[in-house]
Amino acid sequence: MAIPSIITVHEPVDNHDFLERCCKLPPLFTCTIASTETALIPGVSAAGASPELIPYTAAADVEAIIYGQALCLGKIPENPVGPPSPVIITMAALKELNAPFFVVDAGNAITPKVPMFTAGREPGLSLTAPEAVAKVEELFLQGVIIGQQLATNKHTLILGESVPGGTTTAMAVMEALGISALGKISGSMPGNNQNLKQELVCRAMREKNLGRGTLLSDPLTAVRLLGDPMQAVQAGIAMSASQKIPVLLAGGTQMIAVAALIGALLNHPTALTSMTLPGSQGLINSALKAQTKNIAIATTAWVSEDKSADLRSLMEQLPQALPLYAAGLDFSSSRHKNLQLYEEGYVKEGVGAGALALSAMLYHNLENREFLPMIEKVYEDIYLC
Amino acid sequence: MAIPSIITVHEPVDNHDFLERCCKLPPLFTCTIASTETALIPGVSAAGASPELIPYTAAADVEAIIYGQALCLGKIPENPVGPPSPVIITMAALKELNAPFFVVDAGNAITPKVPMFTAGREPGLSLTAPEAVAKVEELFLQGVIIGQQLATNKHTLILGESVPGGTTTAMAVMEALGISALGKISGSMPGNNQNLKQELVCRAMREKNLGRGTLLSDPLTAVRLLGDPMQAVQAGIAMSASQKIPVLLAGGTQMIAVAALIGALLNHPTALTSMTLPGSQGLINSALKAQTKNIAIATTAWVSEDKSADLRSLMEQLPQALPLYAAGLDFSSSRHKNLQLYEEGYVKEGVGAGALALSAMLYHNLENREFLPMIEKVYEDIYLC
Repeated sequence: MAIPSIITVHEPVDNHDFLERCCKLPPLFTCTIASTETALIPGVSAAGASPELIPYTAAADVEAIIYGQALCLGKIPENPVGPPSPVIITMAALKELNAPFFVVDAGNAITPKVPMFTAGREPGLSLTAPEAVAKVEELFLQGVIIGQQLATNKHTLILGESVPGGTTTAMAVMEALGISALGKISGSMPGNNQNLKQELVCRAMREKNLGRGTLLSDPLTAVRLLGDPMQAVQAGIAMSASQKIPVLLAGGTQMIAVAALIGALLNHPTALTSMTLPGSQGLINSALKAQTKNIAIATTAWVSEDKSADLRSLMEQLPQALPLYAAGLDFSSSRHKNLQLYEEGYVKEGVGAGALALSAMLYHNLENREFLPMIEKVYEDIYLC
Repeated sequence: MAIPSIITVHEPVDNHDFLERCCKLPPLFTCTIASTETALIPGVSAAGASPELIPYTAAADVEAIIYGQALCLGKIPENPVGPPSPVIITMAALKELNAPFFVVDAGNAITPKVPMFTAGREPGLSLTAPEAVAKVEELFLQGVIIGQQLATNKHTLILGESVPGGTTTAMAVMEALGISALGKISGSMPGNNQNLKQELVCRAMREKNLGRGTLLSDPLTAVRLLGDPMQAVQAGIAMSASQKIPVLLAGGTQMIAVAALIGALLNHPTALTSMTLPGSQGLINSALKAQTKNIAIATTAWVSEDKSADLRSLMEQLPQALPLYAAGLDFSSSRHKNLQLYEEGYVKEGVGAGALALSAMLYHNLENREFLPMIEKVYEDIYLC
């Protein structure tokens, strides 16, 4: 596929036709939302104009997609420095693609006024708490059911997220699953606050007697002790849906953590088959039939080419190799200062923005210079009306 | 369409091709669940082996579809006399059709362990309470959003329900909307307990100073004062989805009440356009573009030919004419006594059984004698294992 604005960041040999297979089926987008107390630790998240607005971010993002405005916030989420939530990219792409959109609730503190697929009802705690995610097995199973339901339609399934603080829980889960992630994750601020996040992850792991790779053979426990609710749900959806349809994990660092979780679960099936929840057996058997050749990750170039992160290194360490693609979004010529700030390292990704931009480019053969005005139009409709 | 086991009960002239249009698109099934305190009034509902199990019925039905068993009950819901929930018909048809299935939660007391589209979170109260359904406008709007989302896929949308006590709230809402419904509704017991339900409806209307047709120009208030949460959500889904795809309201009496609500809303749009909820304007405009030629009702012959009811009279009184079709299910030759009891007037309909049986017959050209063994197989898998 030679589309100038799409970057092949990492591509195992036997997956070179992934994007071609994707665009044979119409896209269907889900956004899995969750909140955690990890996001409330000062410095972890820049998803919100001020710290007290962080818990509203995910609800506001999905309300913006449905209503064109965030009912719970007034406008849409913003970075403290000004640039708007990447949901404006998502909205522009969804409009262009005319794709169906479902919200999946993995456990969010603020309930948006939109219909949601409920996979979980409890927000995550902090990764420094004894248990960061409650009922992790149930979350995974609900994800498996959602994946089965969505795969009955012949779509390319694009699985986004809105989880403030999610790159920190991603780093922690990757480390517990044996991936050297310290200093390599991206995030929503220039430089990504690597030191602060790294100290936090190291402290949490030390307090729980965990080292790199300790939980490789017990992957859901990595989520339970250090992760966030989205990770378990998203892995379940992707694993069951991938049996039938192509699945794009829509995000950067956070989706590499989900891919690590999927790979570890497939390499260590007893972690699942030993589950004793009622009704789980058929679902687990189904999840273990996941086809990783049907799974890829898609993000923005702001993440994939982020000099303060190292996505290529993370991809190379995955327990099961997957491709990573990026939408070559470039806001440097935008007529809005707040969009230009994306070029300085603010925001970068979220709400499936990268994968949806990539899909708009892929399905409609668009380049950045054609897509940018559509994003600016969404921005103007929200801010200048 | 000449399929021996499908009965055309009522068909306006300009809708003669409805079923033909339906079967050009693959089916997608939703089941909207809700519970109410109306169902707990003795004699109103037979959905549950004993009165204390009634609140579990809807949750158990949808768990059975997902897991093959009801996690919250052990088996599946039963009528006190023995016959099983009509969910066995639904399950057999879904398997045959390989159709996607989504649960919509309009407000259910017991939360099933399945992913649900949340449209509402509060169960209904009794129709004798000052307000039977809270936040009825929000429920309708959430339905409109769900309808938009589901209509992006080219499907025939089949909208079922599991709402114990729902024929009583249906009778009440129809009366308030000007339809002579007393003595004409069907229900899940032989004879349908018409007197008890009628007394209850008349008392509730008297206490609220309502007569037949009082709320015809204010239809959502009829639901608010006398109905159940499913009715508002289902009307919203059907109205917005019908702009793009065929919609089968899957049920008997309860879906005629939903059709009455839709017709009244279309005839009295100011009841919607005067709504002031934030974000509602675009959704209301969308709902008012409903295409009634894309809406029909489908039920079982046990309901349509029920001598203790009069579905034809109800259909003739609708504010906007719609077709009613019935699946000619006949369990008299079943090898199971509990299924034969359906022929004596027990159960009759629910969980979209009629519309799904009709769809299995329609899409796969099946007759009752071919479909019955599939239903018996589901029954045996649940009860004889």
